[in-house]
Amino acid sequence: MSLARYLPILTWGKDYTRETLSNDLIAAVIVTIMLIPQSLAYALLAGLPPEAGLYASIAPIILYTVFGTSRVLAVGPVAVVSLMTAAALSNIVEQGTMGYAVAALSLAALSGIMLLVMGLFRMGFVANFLSHPVISGFITASGIIIAASQLKHILGIDAHGHNLLDLVLSLFQHLPETNVITAVIGVFATAFLFWVRKGLKPLLQKLGVGATMTGVAVKAGPVFVVVATTLAVWLFGLGDQGVKIVGDVPQSLPPLTLPSFSPSLLGQLLLPAFLISLIGFVESISVAQTLAAKKRQRIDPDQELIGLGAANIGAAFTGGFPVTGGFSRSVVNFDAGAQTPAAGAFTAIGLAIAALALTPLIFFLPKATLAATIIVAVLSLVDFSILKRAWEYSLADFSAVLATIVLTLAMGVDVGVSAGVVLSVLLHLYKTSRPHIAEVGLIEGTEHFRNINRHEVQTDPRVVSLRVDESLYFANARFLEDFIQNRVAGDKNVRHVILQCSAVNDIDLSALESLEMINTRLEEMDVCLHLSEVKGPVMDRLRDQHFLKTLTGNVYLSQFDALNCIN
Amino acid sequence: MSLARYLPILTWGKDYTRETLSNDLIAAVIVTIMLIPQSLAYALLAGLPPEAGLYASIAPIILYTVFGTSRVLAVGPVAVVSLMTAAALSNIVEQGTMGYAVAALSLAALSGIMLLVMGLFRMGFVANFLSHPVISGFITASGIIIAASQLKHILGIDAHGHNLLDLVLSLFQHLPETNVITAVIGVFATAFLFWVRKGLKPLLQKLGVGATMTGVAVKAGPVFVVVATTLAVWLFGLGDQGVKIVGDVPQSLPPLTLPSFSPSLLGQLLLPAFLISLIGFVESISVAQTLAAKKRQRIDPDQELIGLGAANIGAAFTGGFPVTGGFSRSVVNFDAGAQTPAAGAFTAIGLAIAALALTPLIFFLPKATLAATIIVAVLSLVDFSILKRAWEYSLADFSAVLATIVLTLAMGVDVGVSAGVVLSVLLHLYKTSRPHIAEVGLIEGTEHFRNINRHEVQTDPRVVSLRVDESLYFANARFLEDFIQNRVAGDKNVRHVILQCSAVNDIDLSALESLEMINTRLEEMDVCLHLSEVKGPVMDRLRDQHFLKTLTGNVYLSQFDALNCIN
Repeated sequence: MSLARYLPILTWGKDYTRETLSNDLIAAVIVTIMLIPQSLAYALLAGLPPEAGLYASIAPIILYTVFGTSRVLAVGPVAVVSLMTAAALSNIVEQGTMGYAVAALSLAALSGIMLLVMGLFRMGFVANFLSHPVISGFITASGIIIAASQLKHILGIDAHGHNLLDLVLSLFQHLPETNVITAVIGVFATAFLFWVRKGLKPLLQKLGVGATMTGVAVKAGPVFVVVATTLAVWLFGLGDQGVKIVGDVPQSLPPLTLPSFSPSLLGQLLLPAFLISLIGFVESISVAQTLAAKKRQRIDPDQELIGLGAANIGAAFTGGFPVTGGFSRSVVNFDAGAQTPAAGAFTAIGLAIAALALTPLIFFLPKATLAATIIVAVLSLVDFSILKRAWEYSLADFSAVLATIVLTLAMGVDVGVSAGVVLSVLLHLYKTSRPHIAEVGLIEGTEHFRNINRHEVQTDPRVVSLRVDESLYFANARFLEDFIQNRVAGDKNVRHVILQCSAVNDIDLSALESLEMINTRLEEMDVCLHLSEVKGPVMDRLRDQHFLKTLTGNVYLSQFDALNCIN
Repeated sequence: MSLARYLPILTWGKDYTRETLSNDLIAAVIVTIMLIPQSLAYALLAGLPPEAGLYASIAPIILYTVFGTSRVLAVGPVAVVSLMTAAALSNIVEQGTMGYAVAALSLAALSGIMLLVMGLFRMGFVANFLSHPVISGFITASGIIIAASQLKHILGIDAHGHNLLDLVLSLFQHLPETNVITAVIGVFATAFLFWVRKGLKPLLQKLGVGATMTGVAVKAGPVFVVVATTLAVWLFGLGDQGVKIVGDVPQSLPPLTLPSFSPSLLGQLLLPAFLISLIGFVESISVAQTLAAKKRQRIDPDQELIGLGAANIGAAFTGGFPVTGGFSRSVVNFDAGAQTPAAGAFTAIGLAIAALALTPLIFFLPKATLAATIIVAVLSLVDFSILKRAWEYSLADFSAVLATIVLTLAMGVDVGVSAGVVLSVLLHLYKTSRPHIAEVGLIEGTEHFRNINRHEVQTDPRVVSLRVDESLYFANARFLEDFIQNRVAGDKNVRHVILQCSAVNDIDLSALESLEMINTRLEEMDVCLHLSEVKGPVMDRLRDQHFLKTLTGNVYLSQFDALNCIN
């Protein structure tokens, strides 16, 4: 039982049938075809040689098959994590060097270890501090940076930078060096892929083509562009005209590689690895949960951390780079009918065959084509509507999104996402540090108490009834002290203060000491302090405390009882 | 009206009578006598020449008189802030140099500006993040470090260090150099002051001396020791025997001084100045609130920031160092009958006379005596009972206290208090990230719903009723998603999920998106999602949102209504 928790393969493996096998095999073939160009492209985005993309899709997916809890998640390189990889490594080592590839392995290893440790210690909750607005803002900004970073391949020029400003400046600087043929291929590929997404589907539907065939045609778009542009380069010898091509890719299974564990390198990679782990986990778990819900399956977030950790460690030792569960490929896998993680393992076999046998076929593949597939894929991530939505909902959420987008674009991915997290925590603390405190009165003829500013209620000048709509803890304890002191100090009639605690889910030690202080100060003013509607768990804690012994008033089950007893 | 907010002196000044004047004058005389040795001692603790202590008690107290809202707060050097000053400066400049005194001015200026800005922007809430346990732990640990740091003066040796370990090691190293006569004076003074605190009061009471006279005698203890040991050194020429004395102190009013605003210095002082501002403000405001409550007076925390800010800026330009409202002197001022801040201004005049005329009298005052007054004063701050109290109350509070004490002792004041704040924020977030979610059922014959694990309740296998005891926000949004998915995925009977929101004080955008996700996923499983008992302010926000339109179920006023409608 306990072993099955850590090895979910034992659960689904024992019910594996011939029918499941055939479903999984069909899904695997479809996903493999889709993954070949995608893997090459994301390797390019990460600043690595194209084969690294294939390698990063083989061992990781097999390890996830063994340790992961999602039946259909497809693990491998994804756009945002590849961008974060490039951003992290380019600050440390020069792109294109051997050291760069080794640092990518170290980053994957470090991220894998972090995920594994978080999983074993059940610390998945850490990822919860990435709020939805921060993630949305981050992904939108990342999509823009990724698209901008690929323009250099479309134009056949050099350009560098990990924030939008640097990138755009660098592009303008090198614009005169544009290779016209490359630009033609790049623009054609991009335009065609956009048309496939937006124009092909309605066209086929109008022509009466079935939904399944339409879906296959749309998904085959990237494969078609890859084949067409590769053929064009080969036939017309465009490689000699300055069109950058993929070139020699070793024909080999994933090699056994060793990440560098030099302390200075690991030190520099610590924060990026942590952020990559969190972002990767959040992206992966939300895809997994969404797909699992469609079949009433369970996802164990802590076990998912273990699965992703194993996948990344696998990537580190087989020539890959950081990976996670990808959205688009998982959806394709699901739609194609994958029933168990075995489909992933079959995909891995398909990619291994590709790595072994098909790499000569991509010798003439132009890098501009890969850039075009990336641009079209990531622009679907860009969605500014979150800004409008957050603006309409709350200022705090809006500030967090805006800061994340602006800082990610202006200062890069690490700064952007870190600032977003810190800001949302601070804003949350700020909100709870100034809780809503309503002075309440009795609605005539009922036992209900409502805000005196919103309703017609009965009040007694000798009694102040206050309802605090927040747990009491250190950040708002002193606020309550000030509030009560200000309310009572100027009003000589007051003899009783009743705190209605129906919305107080917790009272920490600071708040308890503040309550004692309030009690003492009210006593100095000849005012009694009472509590009402204290929740069970809160009362359990208060029961043995000195505070209840010195409380000048009483604790009442309901606010109505309190008022009755006092009068 | 608005001017009076920023200049509280306008409020109390216009009702000033002859009687108030005489009360204030009497209080001022008493406080002045008490403050002379204390000011000298805290200057020593801050690593500054003794006159700096007098200067720091003159301009600041006058400025607080104009801007502060407390009637009785006495502003000047205090133990913990003096220790923090020494800790901040010793890392940057060598003690005893001119640069050190100038850096102390810069620290006061920086801290004053920070306080002023926080006051003008009404940001006093920032100080709320110092939880009571963190402050208690910090003050206890600081008291120990201060006492240890004064042992070198008691023994007449050299010793350095800003954490306990360094201090103790340094003391042991220099122990052989102990000056026996200094040690005799130091030990005698310390023992006598302890006896005055613990033994004199009961003795006088037994002898039938009145309470007022007893109080005066106890408070005059330090003055007596100062006079006695100064006379001893003078009469027996102990200064020539190696007893370190205060020596020449300039006879002058506070000089006009200019803090250094060198960017590199200010950069290094930024964090210490911020921590000094926060700690100083917290200490000051809690004294002010406690004393104000005794007379039903109001304290405006934001205006207090302005008052303390002005006081520190005053200190910076008149040869002082960081100051704040002190506990013991304010209580003495209150007990002595001070009625308005004018008492503080009269105290300032008294100290100015002392600085001008009395400094030759302290030429022979041994530093060991000053150290003894510090040790006896700060040991009353040391109180480990907070550890026991926090242990009994909650693990989170206990961890915060323990970490603050251990880290302050081991790594110094800045690290200790920062770690305490960060840890208590993280623990609070952790707690709220895993909220208590109770599955509830109906208590037969009532309309009340209670936890099915705690009470005998009716349930319906088709309906899952969940009460979340926490506001829903980003840190717990995904937790709720997982919780509901796990509860429903395995249970094929479930057709309805009702979320009872009576304890949900807020729903942020992340939580709203999680609710949408939960709604969609439940829909995939053919389960309806309902809400009940949503609070007014929360409902106000939700009303226009897409979520309510797509909600598969309904929103009910009460959980009982919800159950009735569904059946």
